[in-house]
Amino acid sequence: MTYFCEHDAPSTKTKMKFSCFLPCDVAEIDSAIIWLSGLTCTEENFITKAGAQNHLKKTKTMIICPDTSPRGLDIPGADEDYDFGTGASFYVNATTDAYKTNYQMDDYVVKDLINLLKDDFGADKISITGHSMGGHGALTLGLRNPDIFRSVSAFSPIVNPINCPWGQKALAGYLGADKENWKEYDACELLKEHKHQCAILIDQGLDDNFYPEQLLTDNFVKAAKDHGQEIVVNKRAGYDHSYYFIASFIKNHIDFHLKALR
Amino acid sequence: MTYFCEHDAPSTKTKMKFSCFLPCDVAEIDSAIIWLSGLTCTEENFITKAGAQNHLKKTKTMIICPDTSPRGLDIPGADEDYDFGTGASFYVNATTDAYKTNYQMDDYVVKDLINLLKDDFGADKISITGHSMGGHGALTLGLRNPDIFRSVSAFSPIVNPINCPWGQKALAGYLGADKENWKEYDACELLKEHKHQCAILIDQGLDDNFYPEQLLTDNFVKAAKDHGQEIVVNKRAGYDHSYYFIASFIKNHIDFHLKALR
Repeated sequence: MTYFCEHDAPSTKTKMKFSCFLPCDVAEIDSAIIWLSGLTCTEENFITKAGAQNHLKKTKTMIICPDTSPRGLDIPGADEDYDFGTGASFYVNATTDAYKTNYQMDDYVVKDLINLLKDDFGADKISITGHSMGGHGALTLGLRNPDIFRSVSAFSPIVNPINCPWGQKALAGYLGADKENWKEYDACELLKEHKHQCAILIDQGLDDNFYPEQLLTDNFVKAAKDHGQEIVVNKRAGYDHSYYFIASFIKNHIDFHLKALR
Repeated sequence: MTYFCEHDAPSTKTKMKFSCFLPCDVAEIDSAIIWLSGLTCTEENFITKAGAQNHLKKTKTMIICPDTSPRGLDIPGADEDYDFGTGASFYVNATTDAYKTNYQMDDYVVKDLINLLKDDFGADKISITGHSMGGHGALTLGLRNPDIFRSVSAFSPIVNPINCPWGQKALAGYLGADKENWKEYDACELLKEHKHQCAILIDQGLDDNFYPEQLLTDNFVKAAKDHGQEIVVNKRAGYDHSYYFIASFIKNHIDFHLKALR
C-alpha cells in the first residue's frame, strides 16, 4: 500500500512529509530504499510517476520518499527560485544564518529517516537512490555513510556541484562563500577520501537538457577511476531528464538494491 | 517514446490535446489502445502515472490518451464544477445550446481520433479502455461501435449514469431534461440492444470512495447477465479510485487488449 505521512523531524525542527510504499505488512518489512527527489519535487513525484511499486511486489523491501526541503518557513527569498530554498535543499546541513536552523537535510535523512525506518518500520537494511539533486544527495550521503547505506545509485545526478551553476548557487547559499566547506557535499571530491564497498550505479539520459553542463557525469567517471571506486554508468540514448526516463529504468535500480539488501 | 500533441479537431471545432506512447517507430505501429480519463483529468494523468509504457514494450501497439473535454471556450458555468463542463465531457455529443457546438466528444473519439490513428499512425486495429467517467466512455462507445473497437475494458467505470448523481447532472446538462435521450450514453441501457463480441473486462476497487453510489458496478453485472453480454469483473479488496489502483492492474488490461488486437 502507498502512504502519505507527516512527522515531526528533530533535525529540521519542522514537520516533514514523506511518501512510502509497503509491499507487505509492516511486521514483515526488513529493508528499505530511500529515494531522494530533484529540484521542485515533493514527496509525491516519484511515488506517483515512477511505477516502482510493481517492481517491489512480493519483497520485504519498502521505499520511502521524503520531501525535498522543509516548507512554510517564511525565510526571506526561500520561495523565489526553483533551484534554491523551498524544494531545493540539496540535502546539506546548512550553516548560513537564514538556513541553519531548519535546513539540516543531511541529518534529516541520515538520522531522522534512518531512525524512523529502523524503529517504526523494522527496516534494518537500507539503500539509497535519487534523481538529479536527489541523485547528488544519494551519492554524497551514500559515500560518506557506507556503514548505513548498503548500496547507492542515482538517475541523472549532479555529481560535481562545486563546478556547476545549480550547485555553486545552492552551496554558497547554504554553506557560505568558503568553497572548502562545499567539498563534503560534492560526490567527485568525496571520492578522494571515501569509498563505497559496492559498485555505484548511475543512469544518465543523453537527451537530457541539463547534460552535461549541470550534471557533469564524466567528472564522476574520471574521479571514480582515479580513486578506485567501482561504478556502473549507463548512458541512455534518446532519454531526457524526466520521470519517463526514471520509469523506464527503475526496475534495474530496484533489482540492484534488492540484491545488496538480501 | 511518449509524446504530447495538439491538433485541430473537426468534431469539437477546437484544438484538442492528447498524449501518446509509441513503443516502436511509427512505421511499425499496427494497433492502438485508446485510454479515456476521468473527471478533472487531462491528457497527462494516465501517461505519467499508470506505468502503461513498460507493458507495451516490444509490441506494435500504441496508446493514446485524449484530454477529457474541449478547453478555453468561456462557456458560462463550464469552469465552476469539477463534475461538469471543462474536464468532464462524459464523452457525449451534447445537444444543449451552450455545449452542442463544441462538446462533441463522442464524435471526437469515434471519428477524429480513429481517423488520426488510422491515417497518421497506421493503427488499423483499435481497442478502448478508461477510468471512471472514462470507463463510462469506453463502455458506451465500445458497446455502440463493436466494429470499431476490438475490445473494451474499464477501471472503476460509471456504468449506469442515468441512476447516479454524477451522471444525472452531466447528462441533463449536455442532453437536456428528456431522460429518453440519456439512454444511448448509459452502459446498462445499451446492453438491451447492443452487445460486444468480446468479454468486457472491468476492475473495481472495493475501498473506492465512489463505490457503489456513483459507479453502480452491480447494475452492469445484472444487465450483462440479463442480456447475455460476457463480462469479467474483478472486485479488488483494499484498492481505491486512484491511479495507484490503475497502475496495479493496468498490465492485465493491456494484456487483455493485446490479445484482442493480435
